[in-house]
Amino acid sequence: MKQPDVLVIGGSAAGIVAATTAKSFHPEKNVMLIRKDQNAMVPCGIPYIFGTLESSQKNVIPDSILTDAGIELKIDEVISIDQKQKVCRTADNTEFSFDKLILATGSMPVKPGWLEGADLENVFTIPKSKSYVDNVKACLEKHKKVAVIGGGFIGVELADELAKCGKEVTIIEMMPHILSAAFDEEFALKAQKQVECRGIRVKTGSGIKKINGPEKVSGVELNNGETLDADAVILSMGYRPNSKLAEDSGLPINEFGFIRVNEYMRTENPDIFAVGDCAEKYSFITRTLKPTMLASTSCAEARIAGMNLYKLSTVRAFGGTISIYSTSIGDTAFGAAGVTENLANERRFEIITGTFEGVDRHPATLPDTHKQAVKLIAARDSGVVLGGEVIGGKSTGELTNLIGFIIQTQMTVDAVLTSQIGTHPLLTGPPTAYPLIKAAEAIARQRRV
Amino acid sequence: MKQPDVLVIGGSAAGIVAATTAKSFHPEKNVMLIRKDQNAMVPCGIPYIFGTLESSQKNVIPDSILTDAGIELKIDEVISIDQKQKVCRTADNTEFSFDKLILATGSMPVKPGWLEGADLENVFTIPKSKSYVDNVKACLEKHKKVAVIGGGFIGVELADELAKCGKEVTIIEMMPHILSAAFDEEFALKAQKQVECRGIRVKTGSGIKKINGPEKVSGVELNNGETLDADAVILSMGYRPNSKLAEDSGLPINEFGFIRVNEYMRTENPDIFAVGDCAEKYSFITRTLKPTMLASTSCAEARIAGMNLYKLSTVRAFGGTISIYSTSIGDTAFGAAGVTENLANERRFEIITGTFEGVDRHPATLPDTHKQAVKLIAARDSGVVLGGEVIGGKSTGELTNLIGFIIQTQMTVDAVLTSQIGTHPLLTGPPTAYPLIKAAEAIARQRRV
Repeated sequence: MKQPDVLVIGGSAAGIVAATTAKSFHPEKNVMLIRKDQNAMVPCGIPYIFGTLESSQKNVIPDSILTDAGIELKIDEVISIDQKQKVCRTADNTEFSFDKLILATGSMPVKPGWLEGADLENVFTIPKSKSYVDNVKACLEKHKKVAVIGGGFIGVELADELAKCGKEVTIIEMMPHILSAAFDEEFALKAQKQVECRGIRVKTGSGIKKINGPEKVSGVELNNGETLDADAVILSMGYRPNSKLAEDSGLPINEFGFIRVNEYMRTENPDIFAVGDCAEKYSFITRTLKPTMLASTSCAEARIAGMNLYKLSTVRAFGGTISIYSTSIGDTAFGAAGVTENLANERRFEIITGTFEGVDRHPATLPDTHKQAVKLIAARDSGVVLGGEVIGGKSTGELTNLIGFIIQTQMTVDAVLTSQIGTHPLLTGPPTAYPLIKAAEAIARQRRV
Repeated sequence: MKQPDVLVIGGSAAGIVAATTAKSFHPEKNVMLIRKDQNAMVPCGIPYIFGTLESSQKNVIPDSILTDAGIELKIDEVISIDQKQKVCRTADNTEFSFDKLILATGSMPVKPGWLEGADLENVFTIPKSKSYVDNVKACLEKHKKVAVIGGGFIGVELADELAKCGKEVTIIEMMPHILSAAFDEEFALKAQKQVECRGIRVKTGSGIKKINGPEKVSGVELNNGETLDADAVILSMGYRPNSKLAEDSGLPINEFGFIRVNEYMRTENPDIFAVGDCAEKYSFITRTLKPTMLASTSCAEARIAGMNLYKLSTVRAFGGTISIYSTSIGDTAFGAAGVTENLANERRFEIITGTFEGVDRHPATLPDTHKQAVKLIAARDSGVVLGGEVIGGKSTGELTNLIGFIIQTQMTVDAVLTSQIGTHPLLTGPPTAYPLIKAAEAIARQRRV
């Protein structure tokens, strides 16, 4: 029986960071990571395999990130955990004892049972499996018309990549707009327009009813009665946590299927932690359960688990999910952090919003200037920033992260307004009209009494 | 006599933001801005007039930023302030009374009295004056060999733009490295290498002794005895505050020539504020006087003055200068916020540093991936982040701002480590190895006891 001190199950972003953090903070411990797949994929890179990256091989996370850190890597599938004996058993019948166990078993794409035709030939999902994705890519090469079901980030990014490769792509989204979990209407509509400019058809406001066959996909039928021709269907209708292994071992699971954890990412068993897509999450702001699945959130959780394995630290605990998203459609990028105006209203926050539209270079006569718009959502009572949305150029990702930090440190709009930001003609908006600051100003002005 | 409620003297970044903030927060007041120059220039854009922007006209800040906000603009020069009568008199002999006055008189380039040859033909400085800069540009067109004295940001950016236009440029810097106020050696050397790759000669470690004539510039002589041929010399040896108007009116001036102000940017006179390059600054971290001159700092000060004109607010006060810099040399950008390791040691902070070198896209096989390195400097006792330095692609400006916010909110490395950052293949580094987080981890690991 192998006897690592720390055993990590799962080899995507959460598993890797859990293992490397555990080793980094406990260099004297033996850390082992077991994963099922031969290769670990960059999770957010998967849509780009279909175009920009050309091949899935370019999207593989090198195992050296583990082995260079002194972590033992084992390709195998854990099929049971004995909590009492502190032993895991794998598919090839090996036993691994552990002192501390971190579950990073991830998630798998939803394929709804109610969806007629979901098992037809040329209906695909997007799991984090290289071999599956290679197969999808090979199959799609033979087809022209693709229907993407679900206009979340994965659906939109995949649609964009497929359109780039000459496919006729239609996104079908049951909500009134694409990306509606991350953006309020006015930002979502701009994203949608951008998607449409790239030659993608977008159908919103009606979900899918069935996929037509008889054997291979021939089309899809929507709830509003409309039908579309299609040679292939990609279901990007969300993901559900892989928590069966944990559940079978007797660990508590919440009503959405996530493994229950506390702020230290620790399960009910003080020697077992869970991180990433399989682990329970609360919203930092609304304090309600969230089904958020983001590599970046997962990695924060994984760092926290890795640091708290042997002794707990209140200053290294998880404060709740902020949900920081960003994406790029053509030259225009979109980012969001915290709550939308919609969600804040729904949860009964009293809020004020401020939006400013500017540019991301200065003077705006510089060659690669891009429009930049920032919307902030703040609590009326305290002025604390609860959320933000950004449209801009390639710096949108880091600007969104800045907003994420503003939310996490519970800065007020006054604190933002008195903050210094650095500006440079070739890198940022102007100091006189930096959109983030101007959006905060618009809120502060409304709060003045 | 004209009678605005709020009178702002100076029309660069600080003046504009002071006026627009005053009007935004006190819409019922009449706000007037008086400036000397016919045109306001984007201050940080000035080096780019010499290449990228092609003409100074493209670097003009449109006056509509003032007039659209309902601010009256007057082109004139204030020559005296009567504090008792609350009246300003201008060069064309008009009097303006004021209820509140904001001094944003800026700075002017240093032309050292000790420097022999400083008044020769073809010796230039870089003031924020369109007509002066137009003249420099026209003169330089006739010359090939340019010596830039001073390897700070302005010197480096100007040198780069001139080299782009085919000049033979030499930067002369008395410190051991260029950009040494903002970057520690290892980062400064990378910037220097980048500058040299762009065909610019860099001479460090010896200052200028004299400029050779007899009438026009023929060369420069360094303190180490070396001489260089040159057709023109640009002095970028720093700037000094324009505080004479304030001093003449009886307002206190500090030992570096800056107008004394408190945290509300208010002078000794409760009706007179000073902001921007002319106003006194303390370092947020070292709490010592700083001669920092940055449009972005100025704008933060200007917002604070604008909000505190009629009643003070402790939550809208200035916490001290963070000094957030960024620049781009070719495709590589450099950013810094807070203190360098050098400065921290000099001031007797006990610090720990952490550096991580990664990439700004993921996977790194993506076409426009750029290396990204982050160094953080944190206090050993508290773990509070005191400074940061960044090398990367075009997102460096916003990532540096993120570090600026970390410093301003006094986050510890543990707080950074438990923070969520959003990541996207086309916009940021990977969630598993986001350089900012990895740099924080390197520090936290060393603090572990």
